[in-house]
Amino acid sequence: MPKSRLEAFADGVFAIAATLLTLNLTVTEGHPLGGELLRIWPSYVAYAITFTTIGIIWVNHHLVMHQIARVDRLFQVLNVLFLMVIAFIPFPTRLLALYITTGDAQAAALAYGITLTLTALLFNAVWWYAAAGGRLIRQDADPKVVTGIGRSYLPGPMIYSVATVVALVSPELSAALYGLIALFYVLESSVFGRA
Amino acid sequence: MPKSRLEAFADGVFAIAATLLTLNLTVTEGHPLGGELLRIWPSYVAYAITFTTIGIIWVNHHLVMHQIARVDRLFQVLNVLFLMVIAFIPFPTRLLALYITTGDAQAAALAYGITLTLTALLFNAVWWYAAAGGRLIRQDADPKVVTGIGRSYLPGPMIYSVATVVALVSPELSAALYGLIALFYVLESSVFGRA
Amino acid sequence: MPKSRLEAFADGVFAIAATLLTLNLTVTEGHPLGGELLRIWPSYVAYAITFTTIGIIWVNHHLVMHQIARVDRLFQVLNVLFLMVIAFIPFPTRLLALYITTGDAQAAALAYGITLTLTALLFNAVWWYAAAGGRLIRQDADPKVVTGIGRSYLPGPMIYSVATVVALVSPELSAALYGLIALFYVLESSVFGRA
Amino acid sequence: MPKSRLEAFADGVFAIAATLLTLNLTVTEGHPLGGELLRIWPSYVAYAITFTTIGIIWVNHHLVMHQIARVDRLFQVLNVLFLMVIAFIPFPTRLLALYITTGDAQAAALAYGITLTLTALLFNAVWWYAAAGGRLIRQDADPKVVTGIGRSYLPGPMIYSVATVVALVSPELSAALYGLIALFYVLESSVFGRA
Repeated sequence: MPKSRLEAFADGVFAIAATLLTLNLTVTEGHPLGGELLRIWPSYVAYAITFTTIGIIWVNHHLVMHQIARVDRLFQVLNVLFLMVIAFIPFPTRLLALYITTGDAQAAALAYGITLTLTALLFNAVWWYAAAGGRLIRQDADPKVVTGIGRSYLPGPMIYSVATVVALVSPELSAALYGLIALFYVLESSVFGRA
Repeated sequence: MPKSRLEAFADGVFAIAATLLTLNLTVTEGHPLGGELLRIWPSYVAYAITFTTIGIIWVNHHLVMHQIARVDRLFQVLNVLFLMVIAFIPFPTRLLALYITTGDAQAAALAYGITLTLTALLFNAVWWYAAAGGRLIRQDADPKVVTGIGRSYLPGPMIYSVATVVALVSPELSAALYGLIALFYVLESSVFGRA
Repeated sequence: MPKSRLEAFADGVFAIAATLLTLNLTVTEGHPLGGELLRIWPSYVAYAITFTTIGIIWVNHHLVMHQIARVDRLFQVLNVLFLMVIAFIPFPTRLLALYITTGDAQAAALAYGITLTLTALLFNAVWWYAAAGGRLIRQDADPKVVTGIGRSYLPGPMIYSVATVVALVSPELSAALYGLIALFYVLESSVFGRA
Repeated sequence: MPKSRLEAFADGVFAIAATLLTLNLTVTEGHPLGGELLRIWPSYVAYAITFTTIGIIWVNHHLVMHQIARVDRLFQVLNVLFLMVIAFIPFPTRLLALYITTGDAQAAALAYGITLTLTALLFNAVWWYAAAGGRLIRQDADPKVVTGIGRSYLPGPMIYSVATVVALVSPELSAALYGLIALFYVLESSVFGRA
C-alpha cells in the first residue's frame, strides 16, 4: 500500500490543527482595542509555541515517513490515533492562553502538558512500530539516520511529563518549560542536527 | 480521468471534518476550570470515538481507491455525496457530547446514528458502483481483496441502524454501541485483517 | 510552471469551504433538542444544496485542469479570485439557512444568488482565459471535450442571474431554483454527460 | 529530502488561512438583514484584500519552491515560522473589518500592518536562506528568474512598514494602502511580470 495518501491525510490534519489555532485569538468587545491587544499577550505566546511545536512534529513526521517503504493497516491506525491527539491540541492551547494569568492556571497547564505528553507517546508508538525489526523501513534507509531518529524521540514523553508535573507546583514555570522545549526542538532541528 | 484529485479532495474533507471536531470542545467560563474539564468528559469520548471512526473510514476509502484504476463522473458525484455526509459528522458529534447526559439524550443519539447509517450506506454505494462488473477496478487488483472489501462493508448500514434504533430504548446504550463499533473496526482493521 | 500546486491549493479551498458549511448548523440551547432538530430543516437543505454545488464545481474544475498543459501567472491570479468567491460561499449559505423562513428571506436569497452568479462568472473567466486560442490547453486534448466544456459553462452566469432576480418576487421560489440548478448539474454531470 | 511534503503542508496552511477568512463575516441578529449586509461592507473589502494578498503570497511561494532542488531542516523551520504568520492573518483581518469604522481603527490598522510586515520579512528570510550562494537552488534554475525573485521581494517589508506607520496618522489611509499594495501585486504578478 503506497504511503502518499497517509502523508496527504497527515499533512491535512497538521495544517488544519496549526491553522485553527488562530481561532483562539479573541478580544472582548466594548473595551479599547489597543488595551485588549496588549492584554491578550499570553494568546500570542501560546499561539507561537504551539504552532512551532506542531510544525516541528510535522517536520519529524516528514522525516519518519521518508525512512519508510510502505504502510500497513496497523501503522495507519496508529497514525490515526496520533493525529487524533494532534488535532486535539488547539483546545488545551486555548485554555492555556485564557487561564494562565488566572486562578485556573494549574488546570490549564496540566491539560496542555497531558496532551503534549500523549502526543510524544503516540509519536514514539508510530515510530517504533515502523522501526522494530526494520518492519516498514526502506531497504536503502541510512541506518545511522534510523538509529538517530529513535534515540532523539525517546526522551519526548519523559520531558513533557516532567514539565506537566511541574504545573502542580508552578503553572507559570510549567508554561515556560513548554516554551523552552519548543525552542530546544527548533534549534535541535535546524542548527544542531541537519538531515 | 486520473484519480489523484479525487483523493486530494477526499483527504481534505476527511482531514478537515476530523480536525473540526476539536471546535466542539468548550468549557463554560466563570466555573472552576478543573471541574469543567472533568464535567465535559462526554466531549472527550465523543471526540475520540468520532475521530477514530472518521479515521477508519478514511483508511477504508484509501483501500477502495487503491483497487480502482480510474474514476468517472458518476463515481465522482457519488463521492461528493459520501463526503457531504462525512463533513456533516461534527454536528451530531457535538450534539451527542452536549446532550447525552441530559433529558435530550435520545434526540442526540438518534441524530448521531442516522448520520453514521447514512455514511455507511453511501460508502457502500461508492464501493458497489466501482466494483459492480469490475467497472472501475484495476486489471491487476487482487480478486480476493476486492471480494473481501465488498463483504466487509455490507454489514455497516445494518450495524449502525440497529445501534440507532436502540436509542429509542436507551440513548446511553446506543452511544456505548457507537463506541464499540468504532473499537471493533479499529481492531478489525489493524489486528485481525491486514492488507 | 507545473499545475500540481494550483490543484493542491484549489482542492484545499474547495474541501475547506465545503466542510466549513457544517459550522453553520446550530441549535438553540434551552429548547427541546428534538424540536430544534426539526425546526432547522432549512439548514440541512442549504447544507446539502451548497455542498453539492461546491462539489460539482470542484468536479468541473478538475475537468478544466485536466485539459490544461501548464499554468501561467495570470491564470493563477484568476484562480485565486475564483477561489476567493468559492471560500465566501459558506457565509450566504448560513444567511439563507437562517433567514429563508423569516421576513429577511429576500436579502438572504439575493446574497446567495449574487455569490453564485459571481462564482459562475469567474469560473467562465478561468476557463476562457485558458481556452482562448488554445492558450494553456494540452496538445493532445480532445477538441470535442474542450468545445463541450466551453458550451456547458456559458449558461451558468445567466441561469444564476435569473434565479437571483426571482428573489425580488419570491425568495422561496428563488431558493427552490438554487436547489433545482444543483440537482440539474448533478444529473448532467453524472447521468447525461460522461467524461 | 524531497520538497513535496513541505509544499503539501504549505498549500494546506495557505488554503485554510484564506478560507477561514469567511468566518470573519457576521451579521448582528435582530437587525434587518438587508441593512446589515450593507453595513458590514468593510468586512467584504477586508476579505477581498486579504484573500488576494494570501493568494499572491501563495503564488510567490509556488515560484520560490519551483526554483528549489531540495529542502533541508533549517529551510523547513523557516517555512514553519513563515506559515505561522500566514495562519495568524485572519485575526488582524477580523479586527480591521470590525474596527476600521470605529474609534479603535488605529489599533486595528497597526495590528494588520505589523502582521503583514512580519509576513514579508519572513518570506524574505525563506527566500534568502534558499538563494544565498545558491544553497538550495536547482542546477537548471534560470539565473535571471532567481535574481528577479530576490529583487522583487526585497521591498515588501519596507512597503508594509510604511503603510503600517501611516496608521499612526490616518488608519483609513493605511487601510487604503493595504488595498493598493494588494492590487499592485496582483497586477505585477499577472499583467506586468509573467513567469
